[in-house]
Amino acid sequence: MDFIAPYTAYIERELLKIDFPLQPAQLYDPIRYFIAIGGKRIRPVLTLLGIELFGKQKQQVIQVALAIELFHNFTLLHDDIMDEAPLRRKMPTVHKKWSVNTAILAGDVLLIKAYELLASQEGDTRRLLKLFNKTAVEVCQGQQMDLDFEQKKTITIDEYQEMIRLKTSVLLASALEMSALLAQADEKQREHVAQFGINIGLAFQVKDDILDLYADPKKFGKQIGGDILANKKTMLHLLAQQTASQQQLLDLEQLGKELDPRIKIAETKKIFDLLAVEQRANEKVNAFFEQAQHEINQLEIPNKNKQPLIQLSHMLLGREV
Amino acid sequence: MDFIAPYTAYIERELLKIDFPLQPAQLYDPIRYFIAIGGKRIRPVLTLLGIELFGKQKQQVIQVALAIELFHNFTLLHDDIMDEAPLRRKMPTVHKKWSVNTAILAGDVLLIKAYELLASQEGDTRRLLKLFNKTAVEVCQGQQMDLDFEQKKTITIDEYQEMIRLKTSVLLASALEMSALLAQADEKQREHVAQFGINIGLAFQVKDDILDLYADPKKFGKQIGGDILANKKTMLHLLAQQTASQQQLLDLEQLGKELDPRIKIAETKKIFDLLAVEQRANEKVNAFFEQAQHEINQLEIPNKNKQPLIQLSHMLLGREV
Repeated sequence: MDFIAPYTAYIERELLKIDFPLQPAQLYDPIRYFIAIGGKRIRPVLTLLGIELFGKQKQQVIQVALAIELFHNFTLLHDDIMDEAPLRRKMPTVHKKWSVNTAILAGDVLLIKAYELLASQEGDTRRLLKLFNKTAVEVCQGQQMDLDFEQKKTITIDEYQEMIRLKTSVLLASALEMSALLAQADEKQREHVAQFGINIGLAFQVKDDILDLYADPKKFGKQIGGDILANKKTMLHLLAQQTASQQQLLDLEQLGKELDPRIKIAETKKIFDLLAVEQRANEKVNAFFEQAQHEINQLEIPNKNKQPLIQLSHMLLGREV
Repeated sequence: MDFIAPYTAYIERELLKIDFPLQPAQLYDPIRYFIAIGGKRIRPVLTLLGIELFGKQKQQVIQVALAIELFHNFTLLHDDIMDEAPLRRKMPTVHKKWSVNTAILAGDVLLIKAYELLASQEGDTRRLLKLFNKTAVEVCQGQQMDLDFEQKKTITIDEYQEMIRLKTSVLLASALEMSALLAQADEKQREHVAQFGINIGLAFQVKDDILDLYADPKKFGKQIGGDILANKKTMLHLLAQQTASQQQLLDLEQLGKELDPRIKIAETKKIFDLLAVEQRANEKVNAFFEQAQHEINQLEIPNKNKQPLIQLSHMLLGREV
């Protein structure tokens, strides 16, 4: 997927140019460290591809792209505290390397810096700001729902989908819609672009749940079955609950308390397999993916302009193009 | 100081109108709770008085006033986590009543909501946003300096003043300057208004340090000498260090480890009194206060327009008007 590389490289170069002061070092060193940990920079790349979709230059939306990436990093920094995550991309998280206090404050500054970049974007600042604020609040609501789910005994598939829509999808959608806004696309076009982002996000998140258990261990960076070990209520778990017999429900509940990790994963997987959970989850991924393609097809834009976004969506879902 | 009451009441009424969703309750209940804890609402009142200074109606800047107040509440929420404060205005803090995770996320949403209000303010959004962002980053830097000071052995008076300028004064200044901006005051006028805020903030903070030890116990809500017990490097402490003899420095250091609170406070106060610390700190308060009055005098505005702000500054510093 080489065609993405120049976009990612452009984002990396521009991220390095963001002017963080040297002092107080205890505040800005962790920020620089966290940004340098990197990532796929999918969201800002979406913003760049989003403006090119409308036949304009990527340089025109770089401030928004960077704002989206800093916002994303702010959420990761604070989420890592809440999840007590020791590592991110195999590096110590900020609250582990420094302290929880440092991670709180560094996250706060990243959020403010995101707004600073947004304010420096040419265009209709007020409308950009409104969309950004709406998205930002939704992402926080999604994180809160995720935290709430840990305490809840039963979650419906609809509730789960709403949680991942808020926590993940709306930011992908917004990354694209900000560009549509700056390109002065009409409301219908903006809505198609946003719904493309929403559905790609949903597909990606469910795929992520599937890979956690069904990925090729040689290609998968993390431990297979990590979600099962952590008793996470993923889409796989919810689909299993949906069609499980009374006995299977009891077995799943028992397995939640199983201490031997190998038995826990193997026995849970056995029940999942009996209930065809992988296949049913993949059907969901496909449905979201098809909906995303449908949305982009609706756009009244030359087909060749749509190709990079379509290609990226295939790439994100590990599909052959 | 009855003239402030209608302004505060107006702010309270408008705060109640802010539309926080009911769900997720775990996110919005703590926010409603924290806002209801209240406070003097000094910052938004400054914004209202700031616009009236320029002969305009307070209703014109209500969105900015509320944004400033929500931002202030965001900082308090996160600062309470960092300071491990169990109480605020005699009520349990959010991280105590709910959890640290809840307090982090509730703070994040308050910050975003502040931007939402800012975006809904009529006027030059981009310029408002730039000033707000600059201020917000400075407040975070001030908080970081404050955290750093806990680990540092020696702090100069200049460093301390810079910390309180960032942590407290710039937001007071900004509360006023936002109104000056919206009133389309020229740069010189804006600068005088901002400097009035800065100096009132510095005076207020040093006064606060003095009251912690020298207040009338009957009128003071908190324990006298709390800063000494917490080994806080307040202005009193720094002024003492500045002129203390070698022996007095050693005594102060010893007293830092004293376990009997009555002895610790009494003996420290004895040294402070020998070094005329109260008087010297009051001279600082007076100098900042005079500078603030000087700034407001420079404004090319009818004198009667200035009276409410001057009165408020007297009130904040507990002076007879």
